[in-house]
Amino acid sequence: MVSPARLLVSPIPLAMTAAPAFALHPDRFFDAEPSVRRAARTLYEEMRGLPLVCPHGHVDPSLLSEDRAFPEPAALLITPDHYLFRMLFSQGVSMESLGVPTRDPKAAIERDPRKVWRIFAANYHLFRGTPSRAWLDYELHELFGVRERLGADSADRIYDQIDERLKSAEFKPRALFGRFNIEVLATTDAATDDLPHHRTIRESGWNGRVVPTFRPDALFRLAAPTWRGELAALERVHGASIGGFTEFRDALVARRAMFRSLGATATDHAVEEPYTERLSPDAVDALFAKALRGDAEAADQKRFEAHMLMEMAQMSVDDGLVMQLHPGSLRDHNSQLFARFGPDKGADIPLRTEYTRNLRAMLDAFGSDPRFRIVLFTLDETTYSRELAPLAGHYPAVRLGPAWWFHDSVEGMTRYRQLTTETAGIYNTAGFNDDTRAFCSIPARHDLARRVDANWLGGLVARHVIEMDEARAMGRALAYELARETYKFDVASAPASAGPRHSVLAGATA
Amino acid sequence: MVSPARLLVSPIPLAMTAAPAFALHPDRFFDAEPSVRRAARTLYEEMRGLPLVCPHGHVDPSLLSEDRAFPEPAALLITPDHYLFRMLFSQGVSMESLGVPTRDPKAAIERDPRKVWRIFAANYHLFRGTPSRAWLDYELHELFGVRERLGADSADRIYDQIDERLKSAEFKPRALFGRFNIEVLATTDAATDDLPHHRTIRESGWNGRVVPTFRPDALFRLAAPTWRGELAALERVHGASIGGFTEFRDALVARRAMFRSLGATATDHAVEEPYTERLSPDAVDALFAKALRGDAEAADQKRFEAHMLMEMAQMSVDDGLVMQLHPGSLRDHNSQLFARFGPDKGADIPLRTEYTRNLRAMLDAFGSDPRFRIVLFTLDETTYSRELAPLAGHYPAVRLGPAWWFHDSVEGMTRYRQLTTETAGIYNTAGFNDDTRAFCSIPARHDLARRVDANWLGGLVARHVIEMDEARAMGRALAYELARETYKFDVASAPASAGPRHSVLAGATA
Amino acid sequence: MVSPARLLVSPIPLAMTAAPAFALHPDRFFDAEPSVRRAARTLYEEMRGLPLVCPHGHVDPSLLSEDRAFPEPAALLITPDHYLFRMLFSQGVSMESLGVPTRDPKAAIERDPRKVWRIFAANYHLFRGTPSRAWLDYELHELFGVRERLGADSADRIYDQIDERLKSAEFKPRALFGRFNIEVLATTDAATDDLPHHRTIRESGWNGRVVPTFRPDALFRLAAPTWRGELAALERVHGASIGGFTEFRDALVARRAMFRSLGATATDHAVEEPYTERLSPDAVDALFAKALRGDAEAADQKRFEAHMLMEMAQMSVDDGLVMQLHPGSLRDHNSQLFARFGPDKGADIPLRTEYTRNLRAMLDAFGSDPRFRIVLFTLDETTYSRELAPLAGHYPAVRLGPAWWFHDSVEGMTRYRQLTTETAGIYNTAGFNDDTRAFCSIPARHDLARRVDANWLGGLVARHVIEMDEARAMGRALAYELARETYKFDVASAPASAGPRHSVLAGATA
Repeated sequence: MVSPARLLVSPIPLAMTAAPAFALHPDRFFDAEPSVRRAARTLYEEMRGLPLVCPHGHVDPSLLSEDRAFPEPAALLITPDHYLFRMLFSQGVSMESLGVPTRDPKAAIERDPRKVWRIFAANYHLFRGTPSRAWLDYELHELFGVRERLGADSADRIYDQIDERLKSAEFKPRALFGRFNIEVLATTDAATDDLPHHRTIRESGWNGRVVPTFRPDALFRLAAPTWRGELAALERVHGASIGGFTEFRDALVARRAMFRSLGATATDHAVEEPYTERLSPDAVDALFAKALRGDAEAADQKRFEAHMLMEMAQMSVDDGLVMQLHPGSLRDHNSQLFARFGPDKGADIPLRTEYTRNLRAMLDAFGSDPRFRIVLFTLDETTYSRELAPLAGHYPAVRLGPAWWFHDSVEGMTRYRQLTTETAGIYNTAGFNDDTRAFCSIPARHDLARRVDANWLGGLVARHVIEMDEARAMGRALAYELARETYKFDVASAPASAGPRHSVLAGATA
Repeated sequence: MVSPARLLVSPIPLAMTAAPAFALHPDRFFDAEPSVRRAARTLYEEMRGLPLVCPHGHVDPSLLSEDRAFPEPAALLITPDHYLFRMLFSQGVSMESLGVPTRDPKAAIERDPRKVWRIFAANYHLFRGTPSRAWLDYELHELFGVRERLGADSADRIYDQIDERLKSAEFKPRALFGRFNIEVLATTDAATDDLPHHRTIRESGWNGRVVPTFRPDALFRLAAPTWRGELAALERVHGASIGGFTEFRDALVARRAMFRSLGATATDHAVEEPYTERLSPDAVDALFAKALRGDAEAADQKRFEAHMLMEMAQMSVDDGLVMQLHPGSLRDHNSQLFARFGPDKGADIPLRTEYTRNLRAMLDAFGSDPRFRIVLFTLDETTYSRELAPLAGHYPAVRLGPAWWFHDSVEGMTRYRQLTTETAGIYNTAGFNDDTRAFCSIPARHDLARRVDANWLGGLVARHVIEMDEARAMGRALAYELARETYKFDVASAPASAGPRHSVLAGATA
Repeated sequence: MVSPARLLVSPIPLAMTAAPAFALHPDRFFDAEPSVRRAARTLYEEMRGLPLVCPHGHVDPSLLSEDRAFPEPAALLITPDHYLFRMLFSQGVSMESLGVPTRDPKAAIERDPRKVWRIFAANYHLFRGTPSRAWLDYELHELFGVRERLGADSADRIYDQIDERLKSAEFKPRALFGRFNIEVLATTDAATDDLPHHRTIRESGWNGRVVPTFRPDALFRLAAPTWRGELAALERVHGASIGGFTEFRDALVARRAMFRSLGATATDHAVEEPYTERLSPDAVDALFAKALRGDAEAADQKRFEAHMLMEMAQMSVDDGLVMQLHPGSLRDHNSQLFARFGPDKGADIPLRTEYTRNLRAMLDAFGSDPRFRIVLFTLDETTYSRELAPLAGHYPAVRLGPAWWFHDSVEGMTRYRQLTTETAGIYNTAGFNDDTRAFCSIPARHDLARRVDANWLGGLVARHVIEMDEARAMGRALAYELARETYKFDVASAPASAGPRHSVLAGATA
C-alpha cells in the first residue's frame, strides 16, 4: 500500500454528507496491467518526496513578498483560472456569471463568490477526463481535506471548508511554499519590470528561493500600438533615453544583469512563429528608426523579432541566462471576448509551428556553443518526433521543454515521452515545469507529472526495454535533476557567463 | 457472458462447410487487460441497447420512400462501397471486374454478380485489421446469420445465404429501420433537391423519422463548369429567376425553410480549405455578376466560398439549422479513374488542414452567439489536439464531430478521444454518426463506435481517472445523448430560430 | 521458454566482472499483458527464423567484395555511426574526442580507439529507451557474446572481447552474411558508380546475393556546384559526351540497364519536397541548356527534379525497376559541423512533407499502371494516416515503405502500424528494410522489427480483431514475403519490363 501523501491533512468531519465519498486512489493514472502498475508505484514512491523545482511559471511574486492570506475559494480557484472558466464558457455559461472581471468596471458581473462556486460545482462533470479535474481533485483532497465529491449538492459545504482553511496561518503563501517543498520558484516578468517584489523577498530574510525570469517580448513588437509605451517604460527603469538600436540593446543587456542580480537564470520568449534571422546592423538601425517614427508594420516586426531572437541568443552566450522559446499560440482568437475581458481568458488557440527551417539561423550560429542553452516548447505535437527530438538529439545547446499547456496532461505527457525519447533520449529534455499562475496547484501538477513519468518508466521496465535500476535513475532525473541542471539551479549563485570554455566544435567556434 | 446481440438471427444450417467456423467474440475490440475489459464490457452492455441516432449520412432516401427489396449481395454490399473496391483496386483488381459501373454504358464490365462476389471473397484477407472487415463481419454474422468465414471456399454458399435473406419481407428497408432501432436518420441532399422522397415518406403514414440535410456546396463553386446548371436548378426549385446575389441569397433562405419544413435540423458544407472571410456587399455582388458572365476563376471561387460560409453561419443564427463543416478532402485525385467511373470511387485523398486562422472570421463573428452551432470535422488528425479541441473548449458554438471517414475505426476513434478529451472534455463533442451510404452497415458502425468508447471509458475507470458511475453517464452521452442534443433532435419539432436569447457574451453581441 | 537466439555464441568467461550481469530478456519489447505477450511470443517464434531480405540499405559493397576483416571495435561500431555520435555530441562530447574524421586531415582528433570506446561506454546511459541501445545490446550479446552491461567499468574488458572476436575468420563479412541468413542485400549506389565491387562479387563465385540500387539524385541537382562534376562522371561511365537533355536521358536509361544487369531491382530518390510535374520537352531542353551554361538557379532545379521524378517513373514502367522515394530531410542543418566533418554527421533534420498534391502528377500518370511500382517513405508521421495510407489504399502502384530512420524504433514502428493499417491494410506495405550502413547491426534491426510486428499482431489477436491463423500469415508477410514481393526478389532473375500487360484501368491506359 502507498502511504498517505505528504500534503495530507486530517479531514474536517462533515455532518449530513449527501455527495458520494471522495478519495484519491493511490494508483491513479497508472496502467491497469499489474506488472506495469507495480513498477510504476515503486518508481513513484521514490520520486514523490523529491523537492519541487519550478523553473517556469506565472505566480505573482507579490504573493510571496507580501505573504498575505489567500482570498475566498472562488477568487482563489476559479475566477483567475482560464483552464476552468473557458470550459464553462464553452458550454454556455457566461463569464459574467463566473465573476470574471470585465475591462469596464461598471459592467454587471456576479459579485457573490458563493454563487460563482455553485455554478462551477454544478458543472464539475464537464472536466471528466481532463487534467483540471485531476489537479483540482488533488488540491481539494490533499490541501483542503475534502472527502466528498464536488457537485451541486456538496458545493456549499466544500466552499465553507476551503474558506475556513484559507483563513488559517498555515495556509499563508510562505507557509505553503515550505509545505510544498519548493526548492526554487521562477516567476515570469516583463523586461521593464523593476522587480520590487523580488527585491522585497530578498531583503525580507525569508529563505524561500524565488527568482525572476526576463521576458522582453513586448519590447520587440514594433508594430503594436503599445510599443512606444513599452519603450518609455524601458527608458524609465533603465534610467536613460533610448534613441537608437544600440542604446536599446545596451538597455536590454543592463536589464538582464539586473534580473541576474536578483537570481534570474533564464529568459522567456513568446512568438507566433519561431523565425530567426540575423539582420545587418544597418538594417536593424533602420527598422528601429522606422518604429520610433511610428511607421513599423507587421512585416517589419516579424524581421525585428527574428533578429532579436539572435541577439537574445548572443546575450545568453555572454551572460549565461538560459533561453526559453514558447512559440505557436495565436493569442486572443475571440476579439469580442478580448474587448470585454482582456487577455488570458482561454481563447488562445495553437498554430501549426515549424522549427527546422525557422531555427536554423540561430542554431547554426549558437547551437554548438557550450555557453548557450535554449529550451524549446511547442503546442504542435507533430513537431515532437519530426523536428524537436532530432534537433535536441544533435545540438548541444537544445533541451526540450516538457509537454506544454494543453498537453500538460496524462495523455499529453505520455505522448511526449513516446515521441521524443527514442530520438533524443531523456537527457536532452528539461524536466518538468508547472507553468502555472495558480500557486496552490503546484504540488498537484508535479504529482501528476511524476505519476505519468513513473508509469511510462514502469512500462519500459515491464517490456524489458530498460532495467529497474536504470528506471530509478531516470525517474530521479525526470522529477528533479533535469530541471535543476537545465536551468542552472545547481550552480551555487546566479549564473555568470560560462566564459571562453572550449567549444564542442573545437575547430569551428571561438 | 455477454448475451447474443439484438440483431442475432438463427443461422441457416449449412451442409458441407469447408471454411473455418466464424463467430463474433463478445469482447472484441476491448483491451486484453482484464480490469479494463471488465469495465468496458459493463459499460458496453448499457450502451448497446440505446436507439441509433444517425445525424449525418448518405443513405438514398428513395430506399425508404419506396421500401423496395434490396438487390442481390454484390450490388448491395460491394459495387456501391468505395471502402471495399478501392482496397481491391489498390492490389491490382480492376474496377471493371468488380462490376463498378462506368460512365460509358457500353464499356465491358462484369455483369455476373456471383463472379464479383467471388473475387471479393477470395481477397477478403486484404481487409485484416481494417474497419471494413469489422463492419462486414458484423453484417454477415448478425444480419445474415453467416457462420463460416468468408473466403474463396465459402463464397458461393454465403452468397446464396445472403441472397435468400434479402428476398424476405423482414429484410425490406423499413422493416430493417425498425429492427435497427433507428430513432432518426438524416440524409444529405443538394440544396437544389426538391426532396420528393422525403415528402413521400412524410405522407406515407410510416412513422420512421427520416430528415434531409441542406448541402449547398455546388452552388458556391462559381468557377466550376457545372455552376450555371446548378444555378438553373436552383431557379427551378425556387420558382424565380436569380439575377444577382440578393436574389441568390433569398433563394437559399427559402430553400432552407423548405428543408426545415421536412424535418431538417442541419446543413453540411464540404470545402478543400475551411477559409472564412466576410466580403463587403459590393464585393459579393461583383463576384456574383462575374460568375454570371462566366468569368469566375479559382481565386474568385475561393473568396466566394469563404464569404458564403459566413452567410451560412448568419442564416444558422436566424433559422436554427446546425452547421456542419467537412473540409480537407482532395476529391478525385486519380483523374483517369474519375474520367472513366465518376466521383466517389475511393480516390479522395486528405489534405493538411488549418482551422485556427481559417475559422477566425466566422468564430469571432458568431462563435459566442448561443443561437449558432457548428460541428467541425477533420481528416487531419494533427488538428485534434492542436486546433480543434482548443476551439471547442472555448467557443460555445463549436462541437467536434466524431472521427471521420478513414479515422472511423478502432485506432482512429481511440486517438480521437485521447487527443480531444483532455482539452475539450466529452461534452463539446457531437456523439457518433455513421456517415454511410450503406444502410445495412448502420448497426455495425454504431456497434463498433460504442465498443471503442466503452473500452476507452473502461481504461479511464481502470486507471482511476474517473469513477464507474461517471463512466456510465459518459457512455450514455457518447452513444446517444450528445448526437441527439447537438443536432437538436431532442426538440419536439423542427427547430425554429432560437430567437433573441441572451448572448453568452452579454455585453458584446445583440 | 524461448530458445536461445540463432546468433547466440558461447560467452567468453570473464574474470573479475564488476559491471551488472547483462542478458536479453526473451520477451523484450512485448506488451506486459499476458495474453498479448503469449500471442506475440508465438508469432515471433515463427518469424525469427525467416531469412533476412534487405532491399534498402547503405552497406559498402567493398566489404563483401574484398571480404576483409572488420576493424577494431570503435572503428566498427562508433566512429561511422551517426546515430551514436550525434547523441554524445548533443550532450557536449566533441566529435574530435570520438575520433570522427575531419575534412582537414591535419586536425587533431582522438587516434586511440580504446579512448573513444571508453567515452562511449561511460555515456551509454544516454541511449536508454532508444533503438540504438536495443540494437547495440543485441549485437553485444548475440554477436560478440558479451555478458556484462556496457559502462565505464566494463569498457576495457568488452573492448578486448569484441576485438578478439573480430579477428577470427568466422567474423569476416561473407561468413557473417551466411550466419545472418541474409537472402539478398541491396546497396545504394550513385548513378555514376561503375559498380566495380558488385562486378567483383558476381565474378568471385561466392553465392551471396548482393545487388546495387540506382540513385541518380546528384545528377538532378542542376543548381549545385557539384553538378558539372557529376555530369562529367556520367559521361565517363556512359562513354559518350552529353550535350543536351536527350543524351542525358539516354545515358540514364543505359545506366539503369547496367544496374539491372548486376541484379538491381530498384532505384532510390531523395528530395526535400516530393514535388512532381511533367514539363514540356522544350522546357526541359531549355532548363538543361541553362544548367550547362552554369546559370541554373534553385527554382530551375526544383522544376527539373519534379520533372525527373516523372521521367524516372516512366523508365520504371519501361524497365521494371521499383522506384523508392525518400523525401523530407533537410541535410546538414548545422553548417559549421558540415564544414568541419562533412555530410551524414547526425545533423539531418526532418521537414514537414506533403504528398497529396505533390505526387498527384506522377500518380495520375502512372499510379494505375500495373508495370509501375513506387515505395513511399516519410519522416513526417502525420502523413501516415492523412496522406500515405489513403494513397496506398487506392493506387495499385503505391506501397508504403516501413517506418524510416528516427521512426525505425519500438514506438515508431508501432505508430506506423496503428496509423496505416486501418486504411491501407498490411498488403500495401513494403515489409521491413534495415536502411543501415552498419553491416553487423542488420540482424539486430530485423529482430527488433519482427518483435514489434509480432507484438502488434498479438495485440490484434488478444482483442479479437483477427484470428491467430490470420496473424501467422500476416507475420510471415511482414517479416519476409512483402519485402521480397515488393522489390521483385521473388522473380528468378533481374526484372525485365512487365511488358504491355493489361492496365488496371483497362479503358484508360494503353
